[in-house]
Amino acid sequence: MNSTGQDGSTITMRPIGRVHSPFKSTVGMPIQTVAAAEHCGHIEIFESFAAGLRDVQEFQYLIVLTHLHEAVEKLEVTPFMDTASHGVFATRAPARPNRIGLSIIELLRLDGCRLEFRGNDMLDGTPVLDIKPYIPRLDVRSTERIGWFAKGLMQLPGKLSDDRMR
Amino acid sequence: MNSTGQDGSTITMRPIGRVHSPFKSTVGMPIQTVAAAEHCGHIEIFESFAAGLRDVQEFQYLIVLTHLHEAVEKLEVTPFMDTASHGVFATRAPARPNRIGLSIIELLRLDGCRLEFRGNDMLDGTPVLDIKPYIPRLDVRSTERIGWFAKGLMQLPGKLSDDRMR
Repeated sequence: MNSTGQDGSTITMRPIGRVHSPFKSTVGMPIQTVAAAEHCGHIEIFESFAAGLRDVQEFQYLIVLTHLHEAVEKLEVTPFMDTASHGVFATRAPARPNRIGLSIIELLRLDGCRLEFRGNDMLDGTPVLDIKPYIPRLDVRSTERIGWFAKGLMQLPGKLSDDRMR
Repeated sequence: MNSTGQDGSTITMRPIGRVHSPFKSTVGMPIQTVAAAEHCGHIEIFESFAAGLRDVQEFQYLIVLTHLHEAVEKLEVTPFMDTASHGVFATRAPARPNRIGLSIIELLRLDGCRLEFRGNDMLDGTPVLDIKPYIPRLDVRSTERIGWFAKGLMQLPGKLSDDRMR
């Protein structure tokens, strides 16, 4: 897939930290943080971004945006929770343009630049791009219009990833 | 701020589309999509990513990740909803490393590569990096540990941005 935008523009980002996780391979990982509540990990934020962490310990949940560095880019995928193909923007599959991951983690402890958390669906070494506090008043929506997930979600609790995103 | 990561690595992204919005300036905009429910806009996805949109119309809410191209990068900010300074990762301020925006929009209509939506807190011309379907089972958390937002949220309904993120 072309690495530049339609108008030729590109955007350069750099990691603010890295995920440390027991998951060393994309195969067999939990596929969403809600299915990974018992899995722990920690994020090491690089020293040069440490000032940005002040007051983060006051929040229970954090939205972590990552670069899914091991994923490929696809426009149509058969998600882990389904057997049919969908446009990738109608899925949460990692194999997507720009490969940005969104994990909602539960913060257990902030110790210097180290965030210990629960709800780990991330690969060891994953670059972290941003951290935002989770605020129900801003982030909760109620809807039953959830497309193919209406049947796929029944498979979620014990579902692990396989090799289809490689 | 340094544009490379601590280990020198950078990540290159490109827009998958652009936001078309009545907001032409960062001053005076709604500061969160929940405070912008009545504001509409549309996203034009570039033709080369059109295949990724299949089935997107089956979802009511979409998570839109954007590049906040007009924001500066800061590590400590005084958010629009507060008068005290916080580490940027404890805020939802646009002035943050990598400047990734997260908007939860309500999809009104998908017409080809055009997504018409409600809940517009985005600037005209904002590059879109990713679109993910919003799924309550995956994205809803219940918590009262929301740090300084506990008082700041009372100011949200009529709150507009000012020039502090420029």
